[in-house]
Amino acid sequence: ALAQSSITIYGIADAGLSFESGNKAGAVTKVTGGIESGSRLGFKGVEDLGGGNTALFLLEHGIQLDTGNSGQGGVLYGRQAYVGIANQDLGTLTFGRQYANHYLAAVSADPFSSGTSADEKNLINAVSNGGRMDNSIKYASAVFKGFSANLDYAAGEVNGDASAGRSMGAGLAYTNGPLALRLAVHNKSNDTATIRLGSARNTLLAANYTFKPAKLYLAYGVNKGPLSSTLRNATNPYGLAVAPVATAVTQDSTDALVGVSVPLGLHTVLASWIHKDDKEAANQDADQFALGYRYNLSRRTDVYLVYARMLNKNGASYTLGNASDGGSGNRAVNLGMRHAF
Amino acid sequence: ALAQSSITIYGIADAGLSFESGNKAGAVTKVTGGIESGSRLGFKGVEDLGGGNTALFLLEHGIQLDTGNSGQGGVLYGRQAYVGIANQDLGTLTFGRQYANHYLAAVSADPFSSGTSADEKNLINAVSNGGRMDNSIKYASAVFKGFSANLDYAAGEVNGDASAGRSMGAGLAYTNGPLALRLAVHNKSNDTATIRLGSARNTLLAANYTFKPAKLYLAYGVNKGPLSSTLRNATNPYGLAVAPVATAVTQDSTDALVGVSVPLGLHTVLASWIHKDDKEAANQDADQFALGYRYNLSRRTDVYLVYARMLNKNGASYTLGNASDGGSGNRAVNLGMRHAF
Amino acid sequence: ALAQSSITIYGIADAGLSFESGNKAGAVTKVTGGIESGSRLGFKGVEDLGGGNTALFLLEHGIQLDTGNSGQGGVLYGRQAYVGIANQDLGTLTFGRQYANHYLAAVSADPFSSGTSADEKNLINAVSNGGRMDNSIKYASAVFKGFSANLDYAAGEVNGDASAGRSMGAGLAYTNGPLALRLAVHNKSNDTATIRLGSARNTLLAANYTFKPAKLYLAYGVNKGPLSSTLRNATNPYGLAVAPVATAVTQDSTDALVGVSVPLGLHTVLASWIHKDDKEAANQDADQFALGYRYNLSRRTDVYLVYARMLNKNGASYTLGNASDGGSGNRAVNLGMRHAF
Repeated sequence: ALAQSSITIYGIADAGLSFESGNKAGAVTKVTGGIESGSRLGFKGVEDLGGGNTALFLLEHGIQLDTGNSGQGGVLYGRQAYVGIANQDLGTLTFGRQYANHYLAAVSADPFSSGTSADEKNLINAVSNGGRMDNSIKYASAVFKGFSANLDYAAGEVNGDASAGRSMGAGLAYTNGPLALRLAVHNKSNDTATIRLGSARNTLLAANYTFKPAKLYLAYGVNKGPLSSTLRNATNPYGLAVAPVATAVTQDSTDALVGVSVPLGLHTVLASWIHKDDKEAANQDADQFALGYRYNLSRRTDVYLVYARMLNKNGASYTLGNASDGGSGNRAVNLGMRHAF
Repeated sequence: ALAQSSITIYGIADAGLSFESGNKAGAVTKVTGGIESGSRLGFKGVEDLGGGNTALFLLEHGIQLDTGNSGQGGVLYGRQAYVGIANQDLGTLTFGRQYANHYLAAVSADPFSSGTSADEKNLINAVSNGGRMDNSIKYASAVFKGFSANLDYAAGEVNGDASAGRSMGAGLAYTNGPLALRLAVHNKSNDTATIRLGSARNTLLAANYTFKPAKLYLAYGVNKGPLSSTLRNATNPYGLAVAPVATAVTQDSTDALVGVSVPLGLHTVLASWIHKDDKEAANQDADQFALGYRYNLSRRTDVYLVYARMLNKNGASYTLGNASDGGSGNRAVNLGMRHAF
Repeated sequence: ALAQSSITIYGIADAGLSFESGNKAGAVTKVTGGIESGSRLGFKGVEDLGGGNTALFLLEHGIQLDTGNSGQGGVLYGRQAYVGIANQDLGTLTFGRQYANHYLAAVSADPFSSGTSADEKNLINAVSNGGRMDNSIKYASAVFKGFSANLDYAAGEVNGDASAGRSMGAGLAYTNGPLALRLAVHNKSNDTATIRLGSARNTLLAANYTFKPAKLYLAYGVNKGPLSSTLRNATNPYGLAVAPVATAVTQDSTDALVGVSVPLGLHTVLASWIHKDDKEAANQDADQFALGYRYNLSRRTDVYLVYARMLNKNGASYTLGNASDGGSGNRAVNLGMRHAF
């Protein structure tokens, strides 16, 4: 990072190889970017306003390092863009394009931090738009005896209908020594000015606990309503006779995650299992297993090797994506490097 | 701003709430960006070439802070992009995408600096493209006894026709103590290789005068020819029986502006009235009234509250936009913050 | 450039006038950007990992300075984007969007460095995509007794077909005092998942030799197979009765270049001749002649004047483009400035 006066410039460059098989069209080896973490470039700053108040802003590009394209479907500052004011006692209020609490809770429960083909988003894909909300206001409280609270509001901006397209969320976090707990709820209206689809309602309890020599990760989520859990690749990658419907295979479902990371000096071994329990008649459950290894070349640079496997049941169609891509198959091996600057 | 060696990085992050009513589809409250000033990130620099000469460049993004999208319809450096050479006696010559003098004169006459729902562009929208010219050469003279002159030229770049699509402008400025005067003319050919529409011809006289405790703003403009004054929102937002024709309701028209700003320590009160006098048979006049309040949290950060009202006559269809958006209605309230870095 | 800690920011702003004639629709004078060098803004950095190893990244925008648009057809970091690891003995391995060796060899043999209307790409346009490869891995050896080697690989990323769309290249370079030699081969599969077009195969030998008071440039290239040499402007700019077929007029062809640059203090005179020898039945040869003058205002800033002429034979349709644009005619004059920062 380049920090001085009012602006800090920072980023991540991540690229490598991803082998994916299971697709109806055959296997593929990609030279791709943003496997372990989405490649990015950001500009941020804080200004001391006195009296315990600060003004703050953040602008963050996503970059497809393999092609140079903008990430997030071409949105320029598609990762994050916001401005706000913080008070050391009262908390922080920010406006812009921001992460939903539900997504941040899910990331905190994933030993792979929502990256590589072990990405929790492959199954726990509750908040669409990469976990982000446009037109949003976020409030984050200060931390009090380990507790903190968060509120999300994103306007639908539909003339004459204040509720259509609106998102609302809340989060509660508790940290105490080695324990970190997060509870998050998210309610997103799928309505538009003309179509009434109803709301997606997601709840997630996420935990991680650090003990020698490992860190344990647990999560349990409940998803209700249309588009409450969406497929990352909805193009029928496995050539199923009954193609998945748009981006929503399931309406109601639950998610469970168990993960572990074991740091050994510069080496870290990681593993996770995620189970998607489809509560609908089709019972399209899925299980994702992943095993990873990371070697830290420095505090800023690492290399990684990950193997992941997705088991789809009863015509489910989940794929192994990564931090930047929805993926094309049900077996994947990643080999790459990540460099933070 | 982060300034060192040959590059300065700077910008503005602006966001807040905008309530808009009057639209045929009903009212809307937006969480939006760039209300008071368009959010932006810029890179600029100067190089001393010796002998009173400098080389200079500027590259400036526009950013929709509410969605992270690029402003100016997706143009990457859509605000400004240019390179040039300056001589301390002879003036400055620059090439690129640049503001027309007519637009800069209008900004200088608006107490709201062409921002918030009081934006002068809502009625004085003479130079299309946000006041910018692609493929342009600008010359700015040095200041001599308070006088300075500016010339604009933007190539149409139509093969075999040097005049089609071309813009030409000129400006004269005079500053003397508390008085600042600007006269600007702009002539833009609406012709293409195949269609002859004729030219838009705009003239504006802008003035501001600082006296204790206020600053007074005055402007008078004359617009002639097709597209010489365009609607910011041409989608028939008020559901008129006779929808506005494309982006040009009026051909010939005049504009008059009276404004005032009153700084009181960290507080500033602002007000403006703009009258559009349609000289065509339909006589679609309009009046815009605006009242604003700004509180400076620091030299770089302020919060603002603005109320504006647009009165359309005889089927006119002007809307209350802001620095970044064309707007959707004829009543608006803005509440937001702006942070410069 | 702004360099500190882990990030260096750098760039070029280039703009001016380009007069082009010969087009069926008539002549045009453009106020355009990136004539001598593509305008750009870049972010790069290196991290010392110890033991002679470094991590490195580079992200480089292309910018159309005349319109503010992103270059390279709208790709955000369309010039270059990569991350990698270097070892002082073993060489450098990088992943991302990168230049092919064949293109870099051609640039090294052009006194105009692939810029202005004298651009070698007007005829030696072997590697499509501006000489760049997406999804690529590059290996560059360390230099040993003046010799160095390079390997290119770009994945086609077609499911079930590892060879479709793939590029492979190799380069060998030798420098010894005033002499620099480069040999490069490039093989690009034009196949897709469904269409079998075959491969473009390009070989180039490039040399430059510095002697008082001049520098001599020579190149010879052999192009075989479909799309092995493509037109920069395939819209039939000369109104030929038989319009050029898509982007490939020629299949097999050879290229020869002779150039010279003569620096005289702050002044430099440049000249080049390029001959395209079409080996197909239509025998659509072409010759490009160019003469240029550059004046260095400083080490970072220059002004330039270039005249170029393209002679097309037997219905050939090559145009005089520049560093950023394919061009529209067969006579061109450029007058502009370039500022590096």
